[in-house]
Amino acid sequence: MGIDFDSTNLLAGMVGPENGLTPKEWRDASPSAANALKSFRKSYEAGDYGFPDLPFQTRLVKELQRHARQMQGSYDTVCLVGIGGSALGAWALDCALRGPHPVQKPFSKSHPRLVVLDNVDPDLVMAALEAMEPKKTVVVVIAKSGATAETVANFLLVREWLESKLGRKAAQRIVAVTSEDRGELKVLATNEGYSTFHIPGNVGGRFSVLSAVGLLPAALLGIDIAKLCRGAAEMTDACWKASLDKNIALRAALNHYLIWTGKNKPIQVAFPYSNRLWGVAFWFRQLWAESLGKARTRAGETVNIGQTPVAALGATDQHSQVQLYIEGPNDKVYTFWTVRRRSSPGRLPKQKLGVESMDYLAGQSLEKLLDAEQRSTAAALTENNRPNGCFALDRLDEAHLGAFLQLLEFKTAFVGELLNINAFDQEGVELGKRFTFGLMGRSGFDSYRERLADYEKRQNQARRMR
Amino acid sequence: MGIDFDSTNLLAGMVGPENGLTPKEWRDASPSAANALKSFRKSYEAGDYGFPDLPFQTRLVKELQRHARQMQGSYDTVCLVGIGGSALGAWALDCALRGPHPVQKPFSKSHPRLVVLDNVDPDLVMAALEAMEPKKTVVVVIAKSGATAETVANFLLVREWLESKLGRKAAQRIVAVTSEDRGELKVLATNEGYSTFHIPGNVGGRFSVLSAVGLLPAALLGIDIAKLCRGAAEMTDACWKASLDKNIALRAALNHYLIWTGKNKPIQVAFPYSNRLWGVAFWFRQLWAESLGKARTRAGETVNIGQTPVAALGATDQHSQVQLYIEGPNDKVYTFWTVRRRSSPGRLPKQKLGVESMDYLAGQSLEKLLDAEQRSTAAALTENNRPNGCFALDRLDEAHLGAFLQLLEFKTAFVGELLNINAFDQEGVELGKRFTFGLMGRSGFDSYRERLADYEKRQNQARRMR
Repeated sequence: MGIDFDSTNLLAGMVGPENGLTPKEWRDASPSAANALKSFRKSYEAGDYGFPDLPFQTRLVKELQRHARQMQGSYDTVCLVGIGGSALGAWALDCALRGPHPVQKPFSKSHPRLVVLDNVDPDLVMAALEAMEPKKTVVVVIAKSGATAETVANFLLVREWLESKLGRKAAQRIVAVTSEDRGELKVLATNEGYSTFHIPGNVGGRFSVLSAVGLLPAALLGIDIAKLCRGAAEMTDACWKASLDKNIALRAALNHYLIWTGKNKPIQVAFPYSNRLWGVAFWFRQLWAESLGKARTRAGETVNIGQTPVAALGATDQHSQVQLYIEGPNDKVYTFWTVRRRSSPGRLPKQKLGVESMDYLAGQSLEKLLDAEQRSTAAALTENNRPNGCFALDRLDEAHLGAFLQLLEFKTAFVGELLNINAFDQEGVELGKRFTFGLMGRSGFDSYRERLADYEKRQNQARRMR
Repeated sequence: MGIDFDSTNLLAGMVGPENGLTPKEWRDASPSAANALKSFRKSYEAGDYGFPDLPFQTRLVKELQRHARQMQGSYDTVCLVGIGGSALGAWALDCALRGPHPVQKPFSKSHPRLVVLDNVDPDLVMAALEAMEPKKTVVVVIAKSGATAETVANFLLVREWLESKLGRKAAQRIVAVTSEDRGELKVLATNEGYSTFHIPGNVGGRFSVLSAVGLLPAALLGIDIAKLCRGAAEMTDACWKASLDKNIALRAALNHYLIWTGKNKPIQVAFPYSNRLWGVAFWFRQLWAESLGKARTRAGETVNIGQTPVAALGATDQHSQVQLYIEGPNDKVYTFWTVRRRSSPGRLPKQKLGVESMDYLAGQSLEKLLDAEQRSTAAALTENNRPNGCFALDRLDEAHLGAFLQLLEFKTAFVGELLNINAFDQEGVELGKRFTFGLMGRSGFDSYRERLADYEKRQNQARRMR
């Protein structure tokens, strides 16, 4: 397995001392990496965080595989009902291992597709219900608490849609993934007799891709989840090492922490040069934003910190975002994600057409062109003093993907330690959720409905005063 | 037709004077809007910018419709070969008017699909070639200059793929959209006898959605491009009005310019609450980033200005990005995009399940829930002094979409005037392109290959020195 992180273009020698790290800055900061590792290890050993254990659950993997085998052949669609961390991991796995969505192989019972209901837009959901066949659909409903309004609403619809065709047998086509001991999805699953898999209490949504949350849909899609976990396990072992040379997650974390906070880069661009990694980029957006966007440090100090993650796709976004990246404010750090060997080189025809602006490409390959585009973009950014690093995966198979996901989770956790924030909560989303419960008339949320009504009254006044 | 812009939550009265506009600031700035309109009008009348004319080309619309009618029934796939502004508009139209991709109706000769080859990743392109049937595919190749490496490479592959099945008849299945008088795609199209439509010289890629660039693929997909243009034409008329009350583009432009530059918001989040508007959000990302990310003003002053556009999808990204938006740095202005009436309300089952956290939703609708989510998120942002505005479309049909696209183009052009930058060039992407040409051995680009080699030498030194 091979994954590298090249931080050369994050060095002052390449992008200047205002935007890159000097050897002294790196040396001085190195002890803080060791401390971050130590304090994270301590919390982990206290049982606070469960994601490092996920790749080692060989029994769960076998159970999930058995479950998938039992259902195999009875469905052409895996319908995932979930949102945020309950949906992004499965999409990332599907996109990376089975190809970008619009050009995946036609779906069938031997090659089922993934349909993700991760929004309550009726234009998505009602279209999905029309596009799927209840008798050929397996529904995976995922919610840790079981109270997520979007997931509940979609599940109520999907459940009725299944029952209208399958009657009481509908329950056999539903699998729930939820907490073992809290939340009402668990209650409903028990009442109705759904198969159920559990999310460990110390694993948050955005760190759950290697729990049943990501692995069950993956297994149902025919992905080799054992290999995925083996790759992640190998990376996990590396992530506990104290040596910055051997611990790629810790090295990348320290680099990005120093560039972000020391060189004032409030934006990070995750820049895969791979359509198959596009889903991972969106999964990463949640991981980075929700883990590291925080009002307060653990010590209670108000900091309102956070680095805004942006997903850009190479080479496509060279024709959309790179103008801004090269000429706009120098407020970003770029992280390329490349794949050394693609499934095919994409060999171009040898025949020349007598047209200069086309003929130089004859007999070359898409793979070579895409690589040239990435190197050229990195070079252009560097010449304009824009710091950029690069993760390179040898291949994009189960093992490398599992390792890469785990690497990014460890890296995020380490940056949380370096910032002294809690990377594992998300208090900031509660207010909006409560307003929604209030507006939808859930009992116990009347005060939020009233608070929202007051706000809308103030809005009307402000509008009139303008 | 109804499109509103609600700027109430951009007011100091709602989000405080550090983050919102006071009545005095608005009054003082209003004359600059009038000047921006005047100076843009002057450049337009001098023929510099063509996008305001596009909705009025009734003859072109008829020609495109005729062309589509002639081909109709002979294809189940429209394969678009293009990148950046040559691809994003067609995707935006398809997604908005025919539904989000993963759950579109099954494709057929009476309901063809759009496949966009906007990257040179062989994992995308080779999979697409396998997924399409040459005899049932119409290829639209779009490049203004005709020298775009990615488009040329993909076109060479697609052309060979077509010819291998159709022989000399392949040319009849290819339509080129390119400049009339420059670039070698035009030469090739003439040599090989492709049908050809032209991109006006004064219309750049990101402003070209209502030229043949967007309209031809749309017509081939069965979209009513006449209605699209009529909506855009109506909006265009409004966009030339001097009154801020009547000119929604100018009003939105002034608001965003003042918040961006005056309240220090280097990031703009385009936040559609609609899966169907997801493509438009990516189209907008290019429009905003490439038009307004600039090193210099028109007066030659170095400013390195630009507001980073971020696409977020409501309600989905409430479970991914909103934690950062609420608690992180107050460095963003949010623009919601909502749709008042969806194609279906998404009525939820009336039956209760005896589970409190689910039963309050019984008998309600997805439409109502999605609306509640958006209002709640806006309220939560506002309570945390995060400025946010909202474009509301009455419906998402051809006319509203055409109007909305045109509105965003005018808004972008007006902000360019307010900043005194050229919103219509993109010099910043040239260096990377030239490096790529150098690496791929195109003649005339040897010096760039050498410059890149020097850079990689410096990289190796820096790596060793670390």
